[in-house]
Amino acid sequence: MSPRPDRPRHRVSRVPDRARYDAETVHAVLDAATVCHVGVVDDRDFPVVIPVLHARVGDTLYLHGSSASRLFRTAGRTEVCVTATLVDGLVFARAVFHNSVNYRSAVLFGHPEPVTEEEVKREALRAFTDKLMPGRWDDSREPTGQELKATAVLRMVIDEASAKVRTGGPVDEPEDYELPHWAGTVPLRTVAGEAIPDERLTGGIAEPDYVAELRGERS
Amino acid sequence: MSPRPDRPRHRVSRVPDRARYDAETVHAVLDAATVCHVGVVDDRDFPVVIPVLHARVGDTLYLHGSSASRLFRTAGRTEVCVTATLVDGLVFARAVFHNSVNYRSAVLFGHPEPVTEEEVKREALRAFTDKLMPGRWDDSREPTGQELKATAVLRMVIDEASAKVRTGGPVDEPEDYELPHWAGTVPLRTVAGEAIPDERLTGGIAEPDYVAELRGERS
Repeated sequence: MSPRPDRPRHRVSRVPDRARYDAETVHAVLDAATVCHVGVVDDRDFPVVIPVLHARVGDTLYLHGSSASRLFRTAGRTEVCVTATLVDGLVFARAVFHNSVNYRSAVLFGHPEPVTEEEVKREALRAFTDKLMPGRWDDSREPTGQELKATAVLRMVIDEASAKVRTGGPVDEPEDYELPHWAGTVPLRTVAGEAIPDERLTGGIAEPDYVAELRGERS
Repeated sequence: MSPRPDRPRHRVSRVPDRARYDAETVHAVLDAATVCHVGVVDDRDFPVVIPVLHARVGDTLYLHGSSASRLFRTAGRTEVCVTATLVDGLVFARAVFHNSVNYRSAVLFGHPEPVTEEEVKREALRAFTDKLMPGRWDDSREPTGQELKATAVLRMVIDEASAKVRTGGPVDEPEDYELPHWAGTVPLRTVAGEAIPDERLTGGIAEPDYVAELRGERS
């Protein structure tokens, strides 16, 4: 990946000291986010934003969907903006005005194209599975040719991208530090709960280790 | 709110049996989501999607930002699409093709307008605070007139809106139920961790109850 800080479109204009243009940061945000939000300009010139499952393989971003969806009908012909956001914490300042959230976000621009090659589609499906459900691919029925046809995958190169990151505690006005209000940060994270077995599960099939392991921290 | 299922723009076209047009569902998704993603069409006709803090008061959605941001410079003059998404669980099917996620999303279209009245802006800031940090407004310094001027708030009426909801377990092909793979659902939720006090916190200020209470479940 070569993010292009010279192209103004993805330059961060607001609070530029939170901006990052390195591939490592952009990739880490994409990898940690369960879904991204994809924006397109509709035929009638209004914006449409849809949540989409995604996975990254090197410098390529795959977007998962259905060939029947508005996004996938539109996306092959137009530009998209893909945004992934993680909210990492609540920041309590002494003044309401300085309350904030800690977050990581990535914003990408590009021209996605439909994946038509069966083998690439299979690789993308494997990437979606490995990201959401590590260990699952080898413990499930792989897609048939017909199922691959029914799955729509878009791919785009990650080259016009920026990230924005806020970390740390509150920043108050100098005169407010003496106020009698608590201040600090409350971290937020996503966790997995106890698995709920399918009611049609055949007797004797135990919960696999890779499902139990999801109950570790997720992001 | 009167969602308008007659207007085609926000009709759900893909998997329409997951669609909801009632205010209760749309409001609940907006209220549960920490951030939303706002899409606009840029001057140069490409889509831009930005994460934004939001709060709902009745049928009004407030969007929080800075008057310096690209979104807020553009939004007063154009239409936006606001999308909020919660990922509630991972759905493990016996076949890769039927893996899924449980989620709730809301998609709104509208023309936001900048809030200029000081009192409405204060009401919006209170709504942002009550949503993210319940109990905090009365235990912090309220905004000054100058701070209210520096805060940009957009408002839009929630009237063109839809939600999409998936719940429940996996749905496999009839012949796959005999396969020896575990199947079920793993719920995901966002939780708050131990608070990190600001290093400049004056001695003797204890963590308030409303901060400790965040460690209950969040969504």
